[in-house]
Amino acid sequence: MQPGDRVRVDRGDVTNEGVLLPSTTRDHLVVKLDGGYNVGIDRTEADVEVLESGARDVDEGADAGGGEASEITFDSDLPTISLISTGGTIASTVDYRTGAVTAQFDAEDVLRAVPDLAGRANYRGRVVANILSENMDPSIWRELATAVREEIESGADGVVVMHGTDTMQYSASALSFILDSPVPVVFTGSQRSADRPSSDNVMNAVCAVEAAKADHAETLVCMHATQSDDACALHRGTRVRKNHTSRRDAFETVGAEPLGLIDYEAAAEAGADGEAADDAIEWNREPIARGEAADGDDENGDTSAEVGFYPDLDADVELVKFTPGMDPAAWEYLDGKDGVVIEGTGLGHVHTDLIGRIADLVDDGAVVAMTSQCLEGRVCDRVYDTGRDLLDAGVVEAGDTLPGTAKVKLMWALANADDAADAMGRDLAGELTEESQPWR
Amino acid sequence: MQPGDRVRVDRGDVTNEGVLLPSTTRDHLVVKLDGGYNVGIDRTEADVEVLESGARDVDEGADAGGGEASEITFDSDLPTISLISTGGTIASTVDYRTGAVTAQFDAEDVLRAVPDLAGRANYRGRVVANILSENMDPSIWRELATAVREEIESGADGVVVMHGTDTMQYSASALSFILDSPVPVVFTGSQRSADRPSSDNVMNAVCAVEAAKADHAETLVCMHATQSDDACALHRGTRVRKNHTSRRDAFETVGAEPLGLIDYEAAAEAGADGEAADDAIEWNREPIARGEAADGDDENGDTSAEVGFYPDLDADVELVKFTPGMDPAAWEYLDGKDGVVIEGTGLGHVHTDLIGRIADLVDDGAVVAMTSQCLEGRVCDRVYDTGRDLLDAGVVEAGDTLPGTAKVKLMWALANADDAADAMGRDLAGELTEESQPWR
Repeated sequence: MQPGDRVRVDRGDVTNEGVLLPSTTRDHLVVKLDGGYNVGIDRTEADVEVLESGARDVDEGADAGGGEASEITFDSDLPTISLISTGGTIASTVDYRTGAVTAQFDAEDVLRAVPDLAGRANYRGRVVANILSENMDPSIWRELATAVREEIESGADGVVVMHGTDTMQYSASALSFILDSPVPVVFTGSQRSADRPSSDNVMNAVCAVEAAKADHAETLVCMHATQSDDACALHRGTRVRKNHTSRRDAFETVGAEPLGLIDYEAAAEAGADGEAADDAIEWNREPIARGEAADGDDENGDTSAEVGFYPDLDADVELVKFTPGMDPAAWEYLDGKDGVVIEGTGLGHVHTDLIGRIADLVDDGAVVAMTSQCLEGRVCDRVYDTGRDLLDAGVVEAGDTLPGTAKVKLMWALANADDAADAMGRDLAGELTEESQPWR
Repeated sequence: MQPGDRVRVDRGDVTNEGVLLPSTTRDHLVVKLDGGYNVGIDRTEADVEVLESGARDVDEGADAGGGEASEITFDSDLPTISLISTGGTIASTVDYRTGAVTAQFDAEDVLRAVPDLAGRANYRGRVVANILSENMDPSIWRELATAVREEIESGADGVVVMHGTDTMQYSASALSFILDSPVPVVFTGSQRSADRPSSDNVMNAVCAVEAAKADHAETLVCMHATQSDDACALHRGTRVRKNHTSRRDAFETVGAEPLGLIDYEAAAEAGADGEAADDAIEWNREPIARGEAADGDDENGDTSAEVGFYPDLDADVELVKFTPGMDPAAWEYLDGKDGVVIEGTGLGHVHTDLIGRIADLVDDGAVVAMTSQCLEGRVCDRVYDTGRDLLDAGVVEAGDTLPGTAKVKLMWALANADDAADAMGRDLAGELTEESQPWR
């Protein structure tokens, strides 16, 4: 039984057919089902029958890719990286190249689109969605988190999520709260599609794969650090923001340096034979350490460790922005909501006339959290009268949490925290800088 | 008749009493009424009677300020700067010092609070509002613009508006659209009140006065350029944004260098005797030129020129922000609005499900303009399907206009432009960079 083999798997009442994917664990199989989904299967609980040898895939690769066939065979010396597609520009480039429909996106498609990825890892391709990222919503965040968990538990040494750039920061935040991952989860995307000379897709993909192979367990966004093709920045998922509509270096860590920087040339060279390119990464802060492997002794640093997984989200949370002259009717629909995040002005203010409205929402049981449209800096409602009135009304301060991240966090906190209001003032996933100073 | 004299002015049916303020024009008098408002009075149409000599004011200055009395007398060699207060941290420092109520804010209060202003100009103090700036609204923008116009038409060589920092960018935008001013209109404020050692109020006030005396006619925001006390940045009112909740250098021009930089030490020194400190200003772009003086030959560069004044605003405009997972009910209240500005994702997108809603708003006669929550860069809805569908629905693109500025602009355009939708795609007051490239 080899990767590429077509198999039938019987588990109790459930029978699946599909193609066996590379896996670095001995305990789990990963099978790509004909519908495009991958399932991780506990080998001890399943009967597996090989229906067809995997030579089919290798032949197809040779036909289409012109000699890349050898790179999609499983090499036990290489780490395994799962490439999860959700759509967006970087994934659309794959579609352009293959003309393939969504469900057929797999490792071959990726290697045809970005041949530079070959030899760096064994790849598993997986599709969670094929949408432009403005259509992302909490239910897809959960599906995505579930897929990432399955990939890790079936032995992936790292996960790369290909995502549209418009809402990448929201999805990366969601996974930061939902997952306690023992391996890197690296979001990447493309600001310019592959048919443009200035496309960023190759460098972003190579850097993301190398970041996913490296020795840490952060949930990151990996995108161009500058307008040149020299390095990608590694942003913490909860602190990153798309700050430009079109530039390749649109993504920035707000209020701090990015977690790290990965040098493209050094990473591409060091990681070409499947080695980890840790020397190509310069960390500005100590990253979260990779988890211990559950079955320990794999030479590829097999990390099929437990994945902390808290997928519940209370989607009944709204983000509302205050601007001068706004119609108070804008907030009428908030009645009965479980949570509201306000994007206030300055240290966290709204028009005095709205404070009574907020008090009513809190009285009705909503958690109302304050953030700032300044984006940088902390809210502090103890300085001015308006702020003190807001605190009296029951508003909770979200520190320096970005408004979009605060919305995702509140969805998560309402479903998972003992005290969601309290949780909004504490750091859970790098989204909030805890400081002793009231404000500075 | 001298500044400081108490006068009675008869104009037809209207009689006012108050204190004569410094004026550099021969055609207009400026009288501070007992209610705190200043009125500009065409001298040819009024009978003026001196009720009491101005010695009173000088005495009071000497009592309270310890020797600054001479600086509040009118010096015909000095330019005249109007200081308009709307409230906020910088004005609250004045209140702290004097314990005065709003209506008593005048030149003496300012000089007591910031003695470094003495000798740089003849000052007129004027109160438009005394509110924290989160309570600003379009009706106060109109009052403020009216006051600025009156000050300029009664001979002010420049106007400084003291404003809370929370919504300064909205008010500065509003005045940029409403006024076509022949002299500088300079907004300034304070991120830290005067009772804090790190207060920025003195440097900001001095730089703002010197910027208002200088040779240009821009509507600016003048605030700390860095965290040091070395220079203030001069931001175009329509391109500036408060990007930090508390830092003294919170204000930034988005997507470009500020219009200019004014060196604190150089400006303080050069302007100390009433000279213009133009050499202390480094312009990054050519500023709008000062208007020709209507009566020409005043040695102080008297510029009592015509003020272009278009004060109508259609306040029935909302700014709404799209975020993933939002409840479509959030937009139900938009029915019947005259204008809607959307803060979309990336190049200007919203969830596909909202496009029909937008089409309905447009069909009902609303102008719906798209901006981006990225803040930097242009919207461009010709690249992806969602964008093209939005254009088909009748959305107009606001280029690289900031979302908050776009809201103010749409209020103005609906009341003043022949075709408000078309105006949103053109530059009216430096808010939009017109480019031939579709996007970059």
